[in-house]
Amino acid sequence: MVNVEDRFLAVDWGTTNRRVFLIEGGQVARSARDGKGVTAVEDFAREAKAIRDAFGDLPLLMAGMVGSTIGWRVAPYVPAPAGTAELAANLLWIDPRTAIVPGVSTTGPADVMRGEEVQLLGAVEASLVPADALLVQPGTHCKWVEMAGGRIAGFTTAMTGELFALLRKHGLLAAQIGGEVALGAAFLEGVEQGRKRDLAASLFGIRAAKLLGERDDKDAASFASGLLIGSDVAVRLERQSHDTVHVLADPVLGGLYAAAIEAHGRATRLVDSNAAFSAGIIAIGARAGI
Amino acid sequence: MVNVEDRFLAVDWGTTNRRVFLIEGGQVARSARDGKGVTAVEDFAREAKAIRDAFGDLPLLMAGMVGSTIGWRVAPYVPAPAGTAELAANLLWIDPRTAIVPGVSTTGPADVMRGEEVQLLGAVEASLVPADALLVQPGTHCKWVEMAGGRIAGFTTAMTGELFALLRKHGLLAAQIGGEVALGAAFLEGVEQGRKRDLAASLFGIRAAKLLGERDDKDAASFASGLLIGSDVAVRLERQSHDTVHVLADPVLGGLYAAAIEAHGRATRLVDSNAAFSAGIIAIGARAGI
Repeated sequence: MVNVEDRFLAVDWGTTNRRVFLIEGGQVARSARDGKGVTAVEDFAREAKAIRDAFGDLPLLMAGMVGSTIGWRVAPYVPAPAGTAELAANLLWIDPRTAIVPGVSTTGPADVMRGEEVQLLGAVEASLVPADALLVQPGTHCKWVEMAGGRIAGFTTAMTGELFALLRKHGLLAAQIGGEVALGAAFLEGVEQGRKRDLAASLFGIRAAKLLGERDDKDAASFASGLLIGSDVAVRLERQSHDTVHVLADPVLGGLYAAAIEAHGRATRLVDSNAAFSAGIIAIGARAGI
Repeated sequence: MVNVEDRFLAVDWGTTNRRVFLIEGGQVARSARDGKGVTAVEDFAREAKAIRDAFGDLPLLMAGMVGSTIGWRVAPYVPAPAGTAELAANLLWIDPRTAIVPGVSTTGPADVMRGEEVQLLGAVEASLVPADALLVQPGTHCKWVEMAGGRIAGFTTAMTGELFALLRKHGLLAAQIGGEVALGAAFLEGVEQGRKRDLAASLFGIRAAKLLGERDDKDAASFASGLLIGSDVAVRLERQSHDTVHVLADPVLGGLYAAAIEAHGRATRLVDSNAAFSAGIIAIGARAGI
């Protein structure tokens, strides 16, 4: 039952950024984004007070890294399959007006998410994706998620973005692949090579192609990005029969994933992740009676 | 024709270390190792003089990174298939008594080696491996090499060691996998997971297993090593029918690769890489009439 009359504050509190939403009557009345991610905050109680001073003295529902070991307090993981009911029933209450949404876990193999679950469930709540769907949230730790009956049924995290960042900054390839990534022929060539799922050798091939004069350095970053994203897409789609993959990301990174997914013969739809988050936190807040 | 009467100096000149050999009558009469790899040397002509002052005023035949863009002068790559004849015919002569052994390249996909070729050919010359064999040289950039008729027929480089080093030093897993690697159950569990060839997801699983309390941190480095080596072994052996893999490495790293290869049902033999290098450089020197 949705308490559409209610007002509360929601925070999507990540590692380096945070977004605060004022929710009124089941809608976002106001929102603001800043750089106060959990790593920039020492006193979370004081931050919560500052948020209330700025947005109103209202119930506060938070999600993301604020519930991790580097956040305010550790909110437990709810095992998948998990929907808004399971998350609402397992909020970590700091006080009777302040709560953190739990993460979601799966075993065999072990995997965890924290923050993404709100977007995922919200995407279904807002009818941005069907109740049974394959979603991908690209990023440092890319989530591939199977939704079934509107709940998170299972998921896999690939540290594709982190590997790319490490390789751009350190080691043999850093000088070659530090440039901008463009969605073009070199990226798609990388996606094709990613089908081999042989990262350690394909990455060395970037160096060898330079030494043998086979590829311009200006294309190396795009090729490397295609290789990493392409490997990720290849292994994930091998196990999935969905015709369409719903991509929750900004248009740039989302566009790269969409191109790689389409190269594998699947359709893609870009989903607005901010709209998904607000729909998700509103649904969880309503379920919890916040 | 082997000029067994001749004396010359050979240098295995790598990035961070170097080993000098005095060759007399086709045998190593004396050798010495130091930390003067190419990155520690500015004036190579002066270093060559210093080597001659210490070991005798003799012809000097060098191999390894000394022939790279960070070395004395760039020796070209000889395309595979390549044997001692092709290498001896393509020495880069600095002066009539001083030469650098070329590297070996292959295309489709692009790959290069520089320094390893002497060990590989020497292993056959010294009858340490058969003329038709699969060899692996584990390390920062692991080489997998198919020898045919005593020549380097084809090869693949996997930057397995570099990826492990990057992950131990930077990013999400650094705090977990910085410890010692042991050849035990956790390593072999990693080798098994490596069969999935899904590095980006399996690596995140190390973090998830910790958060869910599924694996002790003391085993994480061994598991990660097994995962990376296991992925490398899995993709390579899929394309190879050799019953035995010859491992050119020190016993510790060689032992890890041997265990992973044996877990895939192949036999292994550890080959002494120093003996292989000296046999190779003696054969090339003899061919070149040095």
